Amino acid sequence: MNIRERLFLEVDATARSNGISRFNRFICLLIIGAVLLAVLETEQPVAETYHQMFRAAEWLLFGIFLIEYCLRVYIAPMNPLFSGKYGRLKYIFSVWSIIDLIALLPLLLTVFDGTAFYLRLARLLRILRVSKLGRFTKAWTLLWQAIAKRRYELMLSGMAALMLLLVSSTFLYVLEAAEQPEAFGSIPRALWWSVATLTTVGYGDVTPISAVGRFFAGITAVAGIGLVAMPTGILAAAFSDAFQNQESKEA
Amino acid sequence: MNIRERLFLEVDATARSNGISRFNRFICLLIIGAVLLAVLETEQPVAETYHQMFRAAEWLLFGIFLIEYCLRVYIAPMNPLFSGKYGRLKYIFSVWSIIDLIALLPLLLTVFDGTAFYLRLARLLRILRVSKLGRFTKAWTLLWQAIAKRRYELMLSGMAALMLLLVSSTFLYVLEAAEQPEAFGSIPRALWWSVATLTTVGYGDVTPISAVGRFFAGITAVAGIGLVAMPTGILAAAFSDAFQNQESKEA
Amino acid sequence: MNIRERLFLEVDATARSNGISRFNRFICLLIIGAVLLAVLETEQPVAETYHQMFRAAEWLLFGIFLIEYCLRVYIAPMNPLFSGKYGRLKYIFSVWSIIDLIALLPLLLTVFDGTAFYLRLARLLRILRVSKLGRFTKAWTLLWQAIAKRRYELMLSGMAALMLLLVSSTFLYVLEAAEQPEAFGSIPRALWWSVATLTTVGYGDVTPISAVGRFFAGITAVAGIGLVAMPTGILAAAFSDAFQNQESKEA
Amino acid sequence: MNIRERLFLEVDATARSNGISRFNRFICLLIIGAVLLAVLETEQPVAETYHQMFRAAEWLLFGIFLIEYCLRVYIAPMNPLFSGKYGRLKYIFSVWSIIDLIALLPLLLTVFDGTAFYLRLARLLRILRVSKLGRFTKAWTLLWQAIAKRRYELMLSGMAALMLLLVSSTFLYVLEAAEQPEAFGSIPRALWWSVATLTTVGYGDVTPISAVGRFFAGITAVAGIGLVAMPTGILAAAFSDAFQNQESKEA
Repeated sequence: MNIRERLFLEVDATARSNGISRFNRFICLLIIGAVLLAVLETEQPVAETYHQMFRAAEWLLFGIFLIEYCLRVYIAPMNPLFSGKYGRLKYIFSVWSIIDLIALLPLLLTVFDGTAFYLRLARLLRILRVSKLGRFTKAWTLLWQAIAKRRYELMLSGMAALMLLLVSSTFLYVLEAAEQPEAFGSIPRALWWSVATLTTVGYGDVTPISAVGRFFAGITAVAGIGLVAMPTGILAAAFSDAFQNQESKEA
Repeated sequence: MNIRERLFLEVDATARSNGISRFNRFICLLIIGAVLLAVLETEQPVAETYHQMFRAAEWLLFGIFLIEYCLRVYIAPMNPLFSGKYGRLKYIFSVWSIIDLIALLPLLLTVFDGTAFYLRLARLLRILRVSKLGRFTKAWTLLWQAIAKRRYELMLSGMAALMLLLVSSTFLYVLEAAEQPEAFGSIPRALWWSVATLTTVGYGDVTPISAVGRFFAGITAVAGIGLVAMPTGILAAAFSDAFQNQESKEA
Repeated sequence: MNIRERLFLEVDATARSNGISRFNRFICLLIIGAVLLAVLETEQPVAETYHQMFRAAEWLLFGIFLIEYCLRVYIAPMNPLFSGKYGRLKYIFSVWSIIDLIALLPLLLTVFDGTAFYLRLARLLRILRVSKLGRFTKAWTLLWQAIAKRRYELMLSGMAALMLLLVSSTFLYVLEAAEQPEAFGSIPRALWWSVATLTTVGYGDVTPISAVGRFFAGITAVAGIGLVAMPTGILAAAFSDAFQNQESKEA
Repeated sequence: MNIRERLFLEVDATARSNGISRFNRFICLLIIGAVLLAVLETEQPVAETYHQMFRAAEWLLFGIFLIEYCLRVYIAPMNPLFSGKYGRLKYIFSVWSIIDLIALLPLLLTVFDGTAFYLRLARLLRILRVSKLGRFTKAWTLLWQAIAKRRYELMLSGMAALMLLLVSSTFLYVLEAAEQPEAFGSIPRALWWSVATLTTVGYGDVTPISAVGRFFAGITAVAGIGLVAMPTGILAAAFSDAFQNQESKEA
């Protein structure tokens, strides 16, 4: 096995049938590190104190990601998907490759105008690529197919949720608008309360104060349990189904 | 196939065995748009600034819904349910047709007194008709039958929830009434806290402050998990059951 | 069928194989009404305004429940459980009969000292008797057996929850005690926050303010999802199991 | 059966095939008591008032745990795992034995410097040993294997949760930073809100106030339901699978 073949096994995520290569694990960690840096840099005092360090890390990441990009382009033709004469070109213009390229841009842009914030977060997309690597592919396919199979049931429970949202916010608008015009003065405003209640988040920044309002709010809160229970139940049943099919196939 | 037959396939929701016709999709979008308009119009400043636009949109919706209503009456007799001599009359007085008619009223009423708010929201009911269209019918039947089959189990967990509500609010009323008469001065008042806690909404506008009160509140919060877990578990099991039956029937 | 037999079928909950008799439905409604009255009476202003009405209703309920009690004692021997010479005595001293008797006491006591609040709520226990009537028995047995069968799994997840509670409150106590002695100055105090967070209730009356405190609080909140997911998953699986067994038995 | 054999059956957790011996139950209760004491002692006023009692209880617990430790060392060689010449030594340096020893330290340390708080909580670890005793072993293995089998699915839903956290906090940071620099001025700060919302805890100490911010916050709250539903569904399906396998094996 020559170096190129070894590189292929190390770099290409689909080359190995099981496990994630050390190289890809390292890249994963780097991506997570890069995202953490981008997140931390939004905290003004931290960004100012460690300005030099952030700069240096950014350059380092740029260097490593550039090398990685070149490596991926170099070994691309060994993947049957990108073999042939124009295989490398085909790879360069594939979705994942373009995302890799975009992940390289932040530093270049910051040199010019200092704001490449969103692009820096785009690196997160690369994690998706990782999550599809090795052993995760099977799990991903399993979950995704189970969800897709029950999409109508899930959409129905989503519709029920939307209707519940609208009905409860209308009720509270009618009942509380007079007492709390700021919080319940219109249906869009009441929707804020309604979302917080039905999802059982319950911030408590706005709550009904009239007795009738609280009565309907209580009913809304109980209905919120149904809102959570329906999709959970559907997903549980769908996954149960999928796991059983998988096992009977493997047996 | 003459025009009337084509119209029937486009307009009647039950005419097609699969998919939703372009006409019904358009009506769906219109209903959603009409409801969004009604919701937005409750926000005073928006309503005043775009008064002309709201008026125009209302007339436009009225026009389209009127045409739709006439079309539905026209093609009604082609549906086996409404065939025969008095089929069209039978259709006009069917539940869904009356809902369609009610959806037409808001504008007419606003011309006279300016308040047809509730009727405007009644249009939402028409979405229900849509949700039963095409591919959703199967999902709807499946979920509904699964829930209906386990209605006694669900009702039991509902009863347990009610009892838990009453018991926890009684406890907190006894323990906290002296310290917070405003929030826990009577059982109906304590119920407000109780609902918020057991459903895990947790607004935080009223919370116990005594040590004993907090101890029982903690137990209530933990019991709240059971309150959510019971119906979720029942639904999950019921759906799992239904999905398996469906598959064994299809196989 | 003579009157006594008819009475038996109407009054005794176990006499009918299916459905709840009109008599028992009526008693159910009365119990719910009596509990609602007791709940409402704790609200001072309401109690004072409608004092006469509450008094009258209390006497009326007493009368009906007394008649019901006598009827139950009268027909008791027709139930195989209480047949024989001392059957009626045996019935009078059975658990349910004593609860029925206790439900009669509130009024008698209020005549003397005016406080029979807790006894009045004891009437709720009679609802339990109702919930075991007719069609609910099967659902109750099913749910109960499914839960009992997985009691060790549920207890384990309960233990994990307790440990999580203790660990998270210890962490927050260590991290936040200096900054918020009132809310996190001891582990029992931190437990109040911990319970509210792990159950996802989240009152928000006490929250960590230091960065490290918030970091661990975030981890606690995420762990709270597991705390909810574990018992829900166990219950769902247990119910799924029970439903399938039931169906294969019925088939 | 001589005394040593009887002691073995009483003290060693694995000696009995079913049930927990009276000795181990007593030790369990003592551990729980010791932890409760440690928890209570962090509450300053209580610790000062009952200082003598806490001291005495600590000495008592030390004495009993010391005797227990000696007993366990004494009977260790009767367990096949620790039989042979160096069996007792092997036992002394086993993980559980060292935890038992650590549980003895708190008192000794408090004599010197008065702070052995963390070690005192380490006693909790001993509960883990208990939870693996007797009937719990089977439940523990069942749950653990079911979770381990679906670890990739659970990790995937964890990754999705992390990504959702990051995306929602970035959105809110961008939308609300200008209006609420204290709460949303950087992504790490916005993460605090994000965690509270996605886990449906919803403290409400920080909430978006702009209309667009609330719109995205509402979407985040709804996505939070998915965040809870996914792992719950996976666990439910995994447990359902495990329970069925167990039953078919037992049948």
